[in-house]
Amino acid sequence: MKQTVQNLEQAYKHILETFLHRKTEQGLYQAQQFSKVLLEHQISPEEFVSIHRAVLEELFPTVPDKVIDSFDLLLEVMMGYGLAYREHQSLRNRQR
Amino acid sequence: MKQTVQNLEQAYKHILETFLHRKTEQGLYQAQQFSKVLLEHQISPEEFVSIHRAVLEELFPTVPDKVIDSFDLLLEVMMGYGLAYREHQSLRNRQR
Repeated sequence: MKQTVQNLEQAYKHILETFLHRKTEQGLYQAQQFSKVLLEHQISPEEFVSIHRAVLEELFPTVPDKVIDSFDLLLEVMMGYGLAYREHQSLRNRQR
Repeated sequence: MKQTVQNLEQAYKHILETFLHRKTEQGLYQAQQFSKVLLEHQISPEEFVSIHRAVLEELFPTVPDKVIDSFDLLLEVMMGYGLAYREHQSLRNRQR
């Protein structure tokens, strides 16, 4: 699982770098596809926010600490959605 | 709805400011409670990411554009979770 997260982080870093560099619709399309991969790997929204933060820190090492710290709060709020999402998965499995 | 989003943005701004200033567990607890309010108002995860970005821009006007732009991608990925979340709500409503 740790390996998967690292691979996803590298993949997302590549998508984000390309997007910030070229700003094309293509980048948004890649993000949509990436979102499907995350859902397939059952990565929770808060885990993804954590990946986004890690990639941001790598790409922009001079970003103020407070901006990076703000992700702690984003993450915490996302946990609420994560719970709803896991409930969704178990509901769907039960309906199969 | 627009009014609600503005109110939520103000509430979140207050929570984030306090959290970044004092860095206490209390801030994380407030974020958990805020998450419940968002779910009650049926705010999608991508709408919340958008609120977070707006608040960051207000609090840190000097943050590099690329960092702010990166939220476009975060938002796009969150839409995948948003879809799953809305599907969850409709499944749950059907089971009632």
